[in-house]
Amino acid sequence: MTVAFEVMRTHPSGARLGRLHTTHGVVETPAFMPVGTHGSVKGIAPRELREVGATIVLANAYHLAQRPGVETIRALGGVHALMGWDGPILTDSGGFQLMSLGDLVRVDDDGVRYRSHVDGSAGALGPEDAVALQEAFGVDVAMALDECVPAAAPRERVAQAVARTTAWAARGVAARRRPGTALFGIVQGGLDPALRAESAAALVGLPFDGYAVGGLSVGEPPAETARVAAATVSALPVAKPRYLMGVGTPGDLLRYAAMGYDLFDCVLPTRNGRNGTLFTRQGKLMIRNAVHARDPRPIEDGCACYACLHFSRGALRHLVMAREMLGAQLATLHNLHFYLRLMREVRDALAEGTYPGRAAVAGGAWA
Amino acid sequence: MTVAFEVMRTHPSGARLGRLHTTHGVVETPAFMPVGTHGSVKGIAPRELREVGATIVLANAYHLAQRPGVETIRALGGVHALMGWDGPILTDSGGFQLMSLGDLVRVDDDGVRYRSHVDGSAGALGPEDAVALQEAFGVDVAMALDECVPAAAPRERVAQAVARTTAWAARGVAARRRPGTALFGIVQGGLDPALRAESAAALVGLPFDGYAVGGLSVGEPPAETARVAAATVSALPVAKPRYLMGVGTPGDLLRYAAMGYDLFDCVLPTRNGRNGTLFTRQGKLMIRNAVHARDPRPIEDGCACYACLHFSRGALRHLVMAREMLGAQLATLHNLHFYLRLMREVRDALAEGTYPGRAAVAGGAWA
Repeated sequence: MTVAFEVMRTHPSGARLGRLHTTHGVVETPAFMPVGTHGSVKGIAPRELREVGATIVLANAYHLAQRPGVETIRALGGVHALMGWDGPILTDSGGFQLMSLGDLVRVDDDGVRYRSHVDGSAGALGPEDAVALQEAFGVDVAMALDECVPAAAPRERVAQAVARTTAWAARGVAARRRPGTALFGIVQGGLDPALRAESAAALVGLPFDGYAVGGLSVGEPPAETARVAAATVSALPVAKPRYLMGVGTPGDLLRYAAMGYDLFDCVLPTRNGRNGTLFTRQGKLMIRNAVHARDPRPIEDGCACYACLHFSRGALRHLVMAREMLGAQLATLHNLHFYLRLMREVRDALAEGTYPGRAAVAGGAWA
Repeated sequence: MTVAFEVMRTHPSGARLGRLHTTHGVVETPAFMPVGTHGSVKGIAPRELREVGATIVLANAYHLAQRPGVETIRALGGVHALMGWDGPILTDSGGFQLMSLGDLVRVDDDGVRYRSHVDGSAGALGPEDAVALQEAFGVDVAMALDECVPAAAPRERVAQAVARTTAWAARGVAARRRPGTALFGIVQGGLDPALRAESAAALVGLPFDGYAVGGLSVGEPPAETARVAAATVSALPVAKPRYLMGVGTPGDLLRYAAMGYDLFDCVLPTRNGRNGTLFTRQGKLMIRNAVHARDPRPIEDGCACYACLHFSRGALRHLVMAREMLGAQLATLHNLHFYLRLMREVRDALAEGTYPGRAAVAGGAWA
């Protein structure tokens, strides 16, 4: 089957309740996608991802190509078998990750040349390779190769990245072979509204299954993120899913779902969990703080996750302080439960027509 | 309630099918107890312990007294609440662990003086303290404080340790206040049959709820372990549970259950799991070996654990090589499933009267 996107209901703000149909199942949107860069969402098993309400997970094509490699993934039955997850999987192509390797990477019009961060071997990733790789993995949603430059880059550098991303997008579209793998284009353009508009217009002219907005939430002031995200979303077609990459905090999810973004991913709930920072309706809770040592209450009153039903703040703090894996596991489970419950509440409120709007979502301190 | 032990069936070899009734539930014996020294069995959540068939888990009183401390454990509702485990818990007093701290420890007739391995503070643990501590934790089975000397220690040193362990045992029994906490004595005596007999006879004269054999499987040749374990078991009352501490491999469990030991604990399945060594009926499997990279088969054919049902050897190897927590989690889950299934098979065969005996237990390479 080919992927398809239905918009069930749209709010005057632009917020939409949608449904993304993929080869491995349906994703109700707005949706948050837990991040499993190397083929595992850190600290949580796939069956627990299901339990906390995940419907789609993210992995990274560049990282998986380095280790364990495309031939190994093929031999093992594809990326779903590798991850032990039979639901939808989206992979980022790795453009963003490659840029973060700095000196190990050279970019030109052909694509990206790099030295592997795993074994130092030389490699190259062009826009056609990126599509072929993700199709070989058997992912449900692939991302076109993009060039992502720092938010503070000079205008000419950003303009060059937009031009390359556009050219690569067309080459990626032309390289498609597998109808069961959706392909999303990625809008770039830094913090410049004109370049964002140019990038969006060029990509919208190509037959992508969805559109992502990249290069945001990379250190710029939140007001800038919001300004660019708002300007860009209005340049994207209403009939296609819109993915705001790398965003964000619970408050960000509420804000950008209200603007009309449908898909989100972020390492915050998992990385923060491993560091002992918990998300609750009342805000963040730093479990390492001594004040929690003898607190018999759960992380969050009323939370139905396994961690909250079976462990007190004091018990969790002990596990974290003693560096027991279970501490990181429970914190990750709770944080993802929090994020995915929040998105469920957003969808419920959209269905009832009460979101965006006051108190429609129990975002608590985050609303 | 007080703990009680029933022997349901005894084989001529001495092997018994039993049932240990504790405040938090019944333990069918022979039983293997997963080790959760600091309040967590590393790499596995309590609900997964249930899933793989654990009925009782181990923790360490000395370690928990250091962190998070007895007052914190009390405030949080006891050690069961701390661990998120509502089944039986046995704690070792910490004598063995203290000895392993070397220079941080001084032992005399009063007990053990130490510097905490956590914060360097000075502490003391006498036989009365050990009982009071474990009772305060609310454990189901407490261990008397013992002095454990190296297997290679001179005879006079071993004899001194036996005398101290006996004196401490009597003081521990006299210090009991909580009928719901069972207390087991620990037989010492190194590799000397006469000292083992002396130690056992002295402890059997005290009203313990069960008897453990300590100071074995600490580096001596396996034939020595077997010789001493066999001599000692015959000196222990048939009506009380017998716990062979720190043992062992799957083959050890089959061997010592056949001798009439009822309880076992060992870090092997969990520690080996974290290192990528898997137990199967065919023997050990080192998942890091390159030969497994593209192997789509499960760890063990026919195994019903979550890891085997959802992940291939190749996928597990990738997770281990990429140092993803999930690799350690899946390996631990499988290994404990293997150990606890083996014990279930031993009990089933004992019930049917076919164990010990050839092929009664599908121990495979371990039998």
